[in-house]
Amino acid sequence: MSARPVDHESTPRMSTTASVDAASELLRRVIDLGVRFKLQPDIFRDRLPPERIRDLLVSDLPRERCTLDVVLELFEQVVLPLCKNEASPRFLGFGDTGDDPAALVGGLLALFTQQNLINQSFDSPSATFVEIAVLRWLRDLLGYDNPPVSDIRTVWDVGGVITHGGTSSNATAMMLAREHKAPDTMRAGVRDPSQFGVIVPRGIGHYSIKSALTWIGVGNQAIEVDTRAFRYDLAALERAVHRHRGQVMAVVAYAGDSRTQTVEHLRQVHDVIRAADPAVWLHVDACWGLVAAFSDRLRHRIDGIAEFDSVTVDPHKVMAVPYSLSALLVRDPASLRAVSSYSDLIMQEDYAFGQVTPFIGTKGWLSLKLWMMMLAHGRTGLAALAEERVGKAHRFAALLDEHPRLLRLHDPDLAAVAFVYLPTDIRREPPVPEHHIARINTVNQRIHDRMLTEGTWHLHQFSLPDDHARLRAGSTLYPLRFMANNPRTDDQHMAEVIDYVTKLGGEIEGEIR
Amino acid sequence: MSARPVDHESTPRMSTTASVDAASELLRRVIDLGVRFKLQPDIFRDRLPPERIRDLLVSDLPRERCTLDVVLELFEQVVLPLCKNEASPRFLGFGDTGDDPAALVGGLLALFTQQNLINQSFDSPSATFVEIAVLRWLRDLLGYDNPPVSDIRTVWDVGGVITHGGTSSNATAMMLAREHKAPDTMRAGVRDPSQFGVIVPRGIGHYSIKSALTWIGVGNQAIEVDTRAFRYDLAALERAVHRHRGQVMAVVAYAGDSRTQTVEHLRQVHDVIRAADPAVWLHVDACWGLVAAFSDRLRHRIDGIAEFDSVTVDPHKVMAVPYSLSALLVRDPASLRAVSSYSDLIMQEDYAFGQVTPFIGTKGWLSLKLWMMMLAHGRTGLAALAEERVGKAHRFAALLDEHPRLLRLHDPDLAAVAFVYLPTDIRREPPVPEHHIARINTVNQRIHDRMLTEGTWHLHQFSLPDDHARLRAGSTLYPLRFMANNPRTDDQHMAEVIDYVTKLGGEIEGEIR
Repeated sequence: MSARPVDHESTPRMSTTASVDAASELLRRVIDLGVRFKLQPDIFRDRLPPERIRDLLVSDLPRERCTLDVVLELFEQVVLPLCKNEASPRFLGFGDTGDDPAALVGGLLALFTQQNLINQSFDSPSATFVEIAVLRWLRDLLGYDNPPVSDIRTVWDVGGVITHGGTSSNATAMMLAREHKAPDTMRAGVRDPSQFGVIVPRGIGHYSIKSALTWIGVGNQAIEVDTRAFRYDLAALERAVHRHRGQVMAVVAYAGDSRTQTVEHLRQVHDVIRAADPAVWLHVDACWGLVAAFSDRLRHRIDGIAEFDSVTVDPHKVMAVPYSLSALLVRDPASLRAVSSYSDLIMQEDYAFGQVTPFIGTKGWLSLKLWMMMLAHGRTGLAALAEERVGKAHRFAALLDEHPRLLRLHDPDLAAVAFVYLPTDIRREPPVPEHHIARINTVNQRIHDRMLTEGTWHLHQFSLPDDHARLRAGSTLYPLRFMANNPRTDDQHMAEVIDYVTKLGGEIEGEIR
Repeated sequence: MSARPVDHESTPRMSTTASVDAASELLRRVIDLGVRFKLQPDIFRDRLPPERIRDLLVSDLPRERCTLDVVLELFEQVVLPLCKNEASPRFLGFGDTGDDPAALVGGLLALFTQQNLINQSFDSPSATFVEIAVLRWLRDLLGYDNPPVSDIRTVWDVGGVITHGGTSSNATAMMLAREHKAPDTMRAGVRDPSQFGVIVPRGIGHYSIKSALTWIGVGNQAIEVDTRAFRYDLAALERAVHRHRGQVMAVVAYAGDSRTQTVEHLRQVHDVIRAADPAVWLHVDACWGLVAAFSDRLRHRIDGIAEFDSVTVDPHKVMAVPYSLSALLVRDPASLRAVSSYSDLIMQEDYAFGQVTPFIGTKGWLSLKLWMMMLAHGRTGLAALAEERVGKAHRFAALLDEHPRLLRLHDPDLAAVAFVYLPTDIRREPPVPEHHIARINTVNQRIHDRMLTEGTWHLHQFSLPDDHARLRAGSTLYPLRFMANNPRTDDQHMAEVIDYVTKLGGEIEGEIR
């Protein structure tokens, strides 16, 4: 990596008319570069092993200045071809496309306006209320009550905070649970970690909950409860809450777990827990399940969610909003007081969000992306978006079902469909013997490895209990996962990726036989 | 707020050539809007009380879709005129201008490329190494050793992480201190909060340290030690570490505190603490002081920084990088293992940053802004930037010193200059009587209130011990603070803001007499 030295005057600064025109012209070229990148059909234009990329890109900071044109050329020639394009219609692993035009416009304007949500009066006079509007829209979709607008007199009347991601939102939820269980722990510290148990579903929880417990000082307090068909076994849940009476601060349920996106039977979980222990903090991770709230046809799946004390949502996952944007919403807005900070470096003013955002001080205008996206779509557009995705997931499931070598591992609730390739000699009649399970896993892990290396298609992979006993109850599988979130992915792509997986599976079967 | 309903087809999606062209054209218009906003001379085009803005902006999500043109018009007409423009040459409170052209280009490209730094192989193949390069440049500037490039085999060889802000970086530093003091607290939880004391300088610390302690479960463990001239009283520091022997996990020093930006005598603090207790974690908050590392002429101010175990830096504060971007750097790269997370939802791969970023899961390409900014300036340009600011602060200090009614409260180390307006009848001979201090504070607080309301100029205000005894030793003052970070602020602006403050001061003096 070399940087051509240039003289002082050519370093762009927005201080003269000429330099402003030059900067604006350059920024417009950058927009075109960005749009072209998102629209390229490929996931990757170039693949290299990490050490090669390291040796290309990691070097000392040059002594001399470098024109912005040269920096941009370096980026375009060396860095960009190696970037993944998640908006490619062949990237089927997640669907964080970040390509909603209104959201991109919001992202651009947030970048240029540089509002700081830590304070309101001089730092984000209108941005604070855009953020409040968005939080109320999200609450409303989920079924949380909103107070009348005229009653919003402080940030503790809003009922939510915008954060940088689901991990951060979940960590704040766990802090709320900690303070709810043992008020004043913020000041006094943790003394008896064993009282801060958190019930999570075995094998399908997201690491952010367990990690949050290690960060907030209560240690490894996760209590795993058995599942059936990727939801809590309600009898086991009830037993667990009784067995650990007095030692449980929270129960976490998934409205769309991060593997199969199965939506918990939220009302039943709520009823079981509330009957056993009214004091436990009930948290829903709805990072994926938020979409069900968009549509009258899908909302029944998250029935009961508004009875929970807090809900994490992750618009960058499901609303094509560029990274990153999450929200933690709370049933009782005032509950956020328990985790608030005070300082005269944050304004002691009613609308200063910096008082209620743990782990965050200065915060950019993340919510503008979402405000623009939601206004552009309206409730009607959001409903259409949700239904289109779920419909596409069902069509993919149907393609799997008619394929002799592919086996679907669950009934899709939302946009995810997890499945395995079955070697030719293995029959899909459970229980499949253990050594066959091992071979199925080997083949599917190799399919995924090869897919990553080739970089033409992308499906995700993780460990998954065989919770529907489609192959062998109690076994752990390594499936491939399709996600229907990308609007550019069509039925042709779905057919093609199935052919691709089948071809790889056949080749690998031959190699390991 | 009303949204004109439109038909389905007019909702922009990047799926057809026509819609892509339309989206690109719109995005270019948005760039022009953003650039015009940054260049407007005013801080605010419009001022309204918060409740009026609330009533304008907080309403239900419309049912129907809305064209992006309409959304943008709503933004431009209603939201934008109320936004603060921190790049205005009259915004002298902080200097988070976010107007470096290379950084803006980097921000745009991060928005469009949507890399996710949680993983490397498929999520951010090149972005991970851009981030590593930036972290090494920052380390190098501060004087931390970097291993040879070929020795970077994992994220635990890098020696730092990019976070969303100084608050997050400081919270991670406090977790490192906690694990260093009591290894395995991540798993076992906190049991004896009293062993996790943290020494901070009295009255000038940043709330993020105290808040971090409440978040990570050790409670209110700050031990405040007296200061002199905004630095630790070294004898008091030594006494404190002896008095609390065995109960101190960290000492925090400020390379530029968040009020006067006085830089601690870091080597002396290090020597005092290391002699008394070699096990204490030494942390520097260099959110402001990073600039001293840019210049050979200023670097002596942070002498000793590389002996500390961790350093927080905040490029969005001092490098004109749009929100938000901070880094936590650690002397021993492997120390980050103590706060790592493991999950098979994060790739178990060597270069997955998601394993070492507490409170953060998915993370956008924040570091691209800084990579482009640093390449465009080079070491030479960064040095010029730092020296220009410090020079401007000294010129402002000289203007204060020749003014009969203004009193500077410290000798500026970096870009900040805190001062008070003195009512006509108060002589600047310490000790000033207490009732005069009260009146000085009243006048300066009213000056600040009026300045906020009028919105033409901006200086910051906070509580400050009179640590140089310029008025009365032991008193708490409410000064005004000038910051020399904005390249558009020139000597004319400095003279004008002094006139403005003097005029307000005179008026308010008359009103309260």
